[in-house]
Amino acid sequence: MKKSKQIILGIDPGIARLGYAFLEFENKDSFKLLNCGIINTSKIHDLGHRLKEIRQDLHELITLYKPDIMAIELLYFAQNRRTAITVAHARGVIIEIASCFNLKILEFTPTQVKQIITGNGKAEKKDIQNEIMRFFNLNKRIEPDDACDAVAIAVCCTRNIL
Amino acid sequence: MKKSKQIILGIDPGIARLGYAFLEFENKDSFKLLNCGIINTSKIHDLGHRLKEIRQDLHELITLYKPDIMAIELLYFAQNRRTAITVAHARGVIIEIASCFNLKILEFTPTQVKQIITGNGKAEKKDIQNEIMRFFNLNKRIEPDDACDAVAIAVCCTRNIL
Repeated sequence: MKKSKQIILGIDPGIARLGYAFLEFENKDSFKLLNCGIINTSKIHDLGHRLKEIRQDLHELITLYKPDIMAIELLYFAQNRRTAITVAHARGVIIEIASCFNLKILEFTPTQVKQIITGNGKAEKKDIQNEIMRFFNLNKRIEPDDACDAVAIAVCCTRNIL
Repeated sequence: MKKSKQIILGIDPGIARLGYAFLEFENKDSFKLLNCGIINTSKIHDLGHRLKEIRQDLHELITLYKPDIMAIELLYFAQNRRTAITVAHARGVIIEIASCFNLKILEFTPTQVKQIITGNGKAEKKDIQNEIMRFFNLNKRIEPDDACDAVAIAVCCTRNIL
């Protein structure tokens, strides 16, 4: 039986800073932002150590919030190639751990996120920030940007499953 | 105390076919190829499922052979971008699991592997195959290529730690 409420995990993937958000969702009029934040890893550690930290932290968060769905940003092929490949290493680990918990996985491009949230596929970061503030009736912006981007991706997901 | 014998895990990363090789190494005159093969994943499954399979299979192999070092092919930035990004997802999972087992990780570019194995950075697949046959006194080539490439990467690693 389909649960009446679903928990969505939104992810803005990265190695140094990974944004995450947990959203409880019932229908288009009933949303709750449970938590959002970032997982930081330090460049003083090697890639293996940083990926291990990301997996461990996500494991804890998923165990705690028990999401049903993960929405994650799709890599933008036009971006810097080296950056895209570095982020893809983190994405691999994130998608693997989500699969271990049997989460349904949805992917959105940055352009789709901008289009869905603001109505403009070329919107700027601050436009996304403002729309998210408005959406959740917040008095201040969600910071840092990576956490706000994760919230935006989770919101996109709700539009997709409505 | 440094162990007299070391076990090297060589990896040719990929999603559909990942080559692996375990090499026991004492010194430049004492080598033993313990095992090599491939981990296959099917494209009928989604990326998360395939990455989970790769991590589980590597977990079993590492538990069995207890390697000290992992040598893995570095991504070649000039290659097809979409392929590079897909392989990077697998590489992230591979490097994460190696880090969980505290393996030392060494990386080699395809050109370095060709140069170290054949003396020619532009060598072809068959040249690598022939050199590996000669090196281990085998009567026939190691197949498929992905397994042979993993052996070649493990051999490169021995040159690096000699």
